[in-house]
Amino acid sequence: MTPLDEAAMDAAFARQATLTKPHGALGKLEGLSIWLAGVQGRCPPEPLRRRRLVVFAGDHGVAAKGVSAYPSEVTAQMVANMRNGGAACCVLAARAGVTIRVEEVSVGTPSRSIDEAPAIDDPRTWFERGIAIADAEVDEGADLLIAGDMGIGNSTAAAALVCALTGSEPAETVGRGTGVDDAGWARKVTVVRDALRRSKATDPVDLLGDLGGADVAAMSGFLLGAARRRTPVVLDGVVSGAAALAANRVEDGAAAYWVAGHRSTEPAHRRALEALRLEPLLDLGLRLGEGTGALLALPLLDAAVAIIGDMATFGSAGVSGPA
Amino acid sequence: MTPLDEAAMDAAFARQATLTKPHGALGKLEGLSIWLAGVQGRCPPEPLRRRRLVVFAGDHGVAAKGVSAYPSEVTAQMVANMRNGGAACCVLAARAGVTIRVEEVSVGTPSRSIDEAPAIDDPRTWFERGIAIADAEVDEGADLLIAGDMGIGNSTAAAALVCALTGSEPAETVGRGTGVDDAGWARKVTVVRDALRRSKATDPVDLLGDLGGADVAAMSGFLLGAARRRTPVVLDGVVSGAAALAANRVEDGAAAYWVAGHRSTEPAHRRALEALRLEPLLDLGLRLGEGTGALLALPLLDAAVAIIGDMATFGSAGVSGPA
Repeated sequence: MTPLDEAAMDAAFARQATLTKPHGALGKLEGLSIWLAGVQGRCPPEPLRRRRLVVFAGDHGVAAKGVSAYPSEVTAQMVANMRNGGAACCVLAARAGVTIRVEEVSVGTPSRSIDEAPAIDDPRTWFERGIAIADAEVDEGADLLIAGDMGIGNSTAAAALVCALTGSEPAETVGRGTGVDDAGWARKVTVVRDALRRSKATDPVDLLGDLGGADVAAMSGFLLGAARRRTPVVLDGVVSGAAALAANRVEDGAAAYWVAGHRSTEPAHRRALEALRLEPLLDLGLRLGEGTGALLALPLLDAAVAIIGDMATFGSAGVSGPA
Repeated sequence: MTPLDEAAMDAAFARQATLTKPHGALGKLEGLSIWLAGVQGRCPPEPLRRRRLVVFAGDHGVAAKGVSAYPSEVTAQMVANMRNGGAACCVLAARAGVTIRVEEVSVGTPSRSIDEAPAIDDPRTWFERGIAIADAEVDEGADLLIAGDMGIGNSTAAAALVCALTGSEPAETVGRGTGVDDAGWARKVTVVRDALRRSKATDPVDLLGDLGGADVAAMSGFLLGAARRRTPVVLDGVVSGAAALAANRVEDGAAAYWVAGHRSTEPAHRRALEALRLEPLLDLGLRLGEGTGALLALPLLDAAVAIIGDMATFGSAGVSGPA
């Protein structure tokens, strides 16, 4: 993995000090501009013009175990809703100037229930497919990528992955997902415990096969592919957090190309971000997925680009520096 | 003060439950849509089309006491920079679709140093002038207002006001402002202590005169005027927080019309928001003022309006509800 461009980051840091504001006064926004300079290898960083959300949709056999507040049929229904522009991600993507690609990875062909068997047999195939999707998007000009999720049961898979990758306890990691009740939450914890007992894998791609599913494996490959192509990513919620954690385990340093859009209410998401050492931009109690949290954070990245690119300097504006 | 429209808020809450997402899954964004419905008295709330930032600029005699990292001349220089479009607030306002009015309340005619004497003699005049500015903006069609600040020394005035209005200790309330060093911070604490010892006022407008200054008094009136005209406000940093606290003391219930854009690094800002019971949308380590934190938060309010207005419902999209 190519590291971020240090020279561009140094230049961005130095440029921030020339702008007509106290140095550091725009906090994380200044950090974002420096990060993006490092990702792009230029200072000031270029505005993000072709922004793409790829939604990885898939069904999960574990949904039959009563771990979600919604029935499995909702996955396909929501894919149709996305194609018709009615989903939350469509509304937010339109506002943020992002186009959407809905990738039906495994809709209607669910991964196996992870408490009973490996979710899928061929995680490498799906992981590579995700890398290929990132490559295709970058080849077509994407300069900012977001991975969204849609799949009833996928927060169970994500929690299991985070437990396996961080060694955390299921009861402290499993969340409410779409809003399951107490009994459903208890079933979800049991399913994750059983899945962890069953899987003995340590390789991150094997874990994506055992605990994740085709959609999560593809999303993980997509995030790695974006990093390999030095294309910035805004991460979304718990599913993209789990996929990111696995991808960074495959290739250490990939996380340098990702920024955390938000922290959701899912404990597994918090743990994934901590393990990735990523500090979220937003903390708004979101728990929807689809890329919505990343789409809400994107204007902050745009603002960071505008600030470092367009503000006057102390010299050009004739403003005195510190006394 | 007219309370928010309960019927519109109930309708917005109910409408959120019909949209194709788990109820509550968009967290604070759903709360924002319900709040704006209550402010506007209609559901769904109208998109915010004429958005105005009014920057209240003024000099503070206390700047001569070494409480700021920058010299007083910077106030006028930054006002010129704002008129030329080079300041941070100009760049962020352009991105957020907000126009700017720079109100030179007391630039070059500083308020007196608050440790020695009341900042100004006629706070009611300035407070009323702020109300009149809000009235004029709303009469001209503004449907969203932001109050920004520009004035070397104004975070000292804000900290003194917050101490007086909340009973908090100067050493726990005074912050670094534009980035003053340890010795400057100690001087700032001393100045605030001396000012609090001198002023015996309890009336909030009297306190604006004793500890604030013409610019802060005008901003406070502006915020109250916006609330009286039922026009939503996104609050910015510590100066707008202090002005808001005083305005809400003048007329209890005004704060219902304000949303906190962010929480800055200034301890006085945190205290002001707590006293106002306002939870900030962003927490990005900002400490610039000018309205910048409010401008960065505004896209979240726009997103909230788009979500409640444009998303498909379970019925219209043929998506199943909870199992």
